[in-house]
Amino acid sequence: MPLAAPALAAGRDIAMPDILHRVGMNASPAKVYRALATLEGLSHWWIVGTTGDPSIGGTLHFRPEGGGFDMKVLESTPRRRVRWKCVGGPDDWVGTELIFRLKSRGGQTYVLFTHAGWREPVEFMHHCSTKWAVFLLSLVNWVERGEGRPHPYDVKIHPGD
Amino acid sequence: MPLAAPALAAGRDIAMPDILHRVGMNASPAKVYRALATLEGLSHWWIVGTTGDPSIGGTLHFRPEGGGFDMKVLESTPRRRVRWKCVGGPDDWVGTELIFRLKSRGGQTYVLFTHAGWREPVEFMHHCSTKWAVFLLSLVNWVERGEGRPHPYDVKIHPGD
Repeated sequence: MPLAAPALAAGRDIAMPDILHRVGMNASPAKVYRALATLEGLSHWWIVGTTGDPSIGGTLHFRPEGGGFDMKVLESTPRRRVRWKCVGGPDDWVGTELIFRLKSRGGQTYVLFTHAGWREPVEFMHHCSTKWAVFLLSLVNWVERGEGRPHPYDVKIHPGD
Repeated sequence: MPLAAPALAAGRDIAMPDILHRVGMNASPAKVYRALATLEGLSHWWIVGTTGDPSIGGTLHFRPEGGGFDMKVLESTPRRRVRWKCVGGPDDWVGTELIFRLKSRGGQTYVLFTHAGWREPVEFMHHCSTKWAVFLLSLVNWVERGEGRPHPYDVKIHPGD
């Protein structure tokens, strides 16, 4: 059964949909960048115990129990942008790109997030979209108050998540 | 400045991106459907004080302060699916479709959500994607525990949201 909704079926190119999100926080771009570009930061809002090399060309290792992701760092520009390519992990993720763009406006820093290059809008993509929202809100709470909820302490989005 | 990330620029059709989400809950499809297809349900997880006619062909009115949405009900199939077309609201929303598909599996009911037909991946779309995650988690908490957080009591995703 196709998972795409009926409205999607009429001749549209749905080959490469993206996950998009935006959050904002009371913090400087420099502080937000540190949360995205250091092992300490990533371990406090996304997945505990992040290892690897967060510099350009390095590879980050995220190892939740029973799975994991390896991300090659394509770009890491202080106060501006971080971009990874997934080089290890679930089949649906390998080859996708994750981009965090920082925008300073009205005294706050926004993060525009894109998880690009999905081949199909599979049900797992729906799940990951909702989980990214959860983790980006964890990023906000980590940056503003030191209260991140990285995996495995993250907000669950269904029983057994 | 284009808001699309660099990875999007290489000849891809990004004309009609969608917002996708999935949540699951310990409840019957009938109970989840009631939360999506009645004024009482919608008022308890999305926007307080929802009015209008939730039957097929009717129009629902959502009126947060300073704005609002009118949704024509295209489909409302008990335990299966609810589908709306936005006929009033922000320019970016008018003409888009919102689809809630229910799937029963492993003793829980999943809601696969699609907000389809966006013309461009504008920054507002990033914002709405994250807000839909927040509201779908409100749906879960309303259905499972009677603890929805509809607007204006919703989780904020940036200062001033």
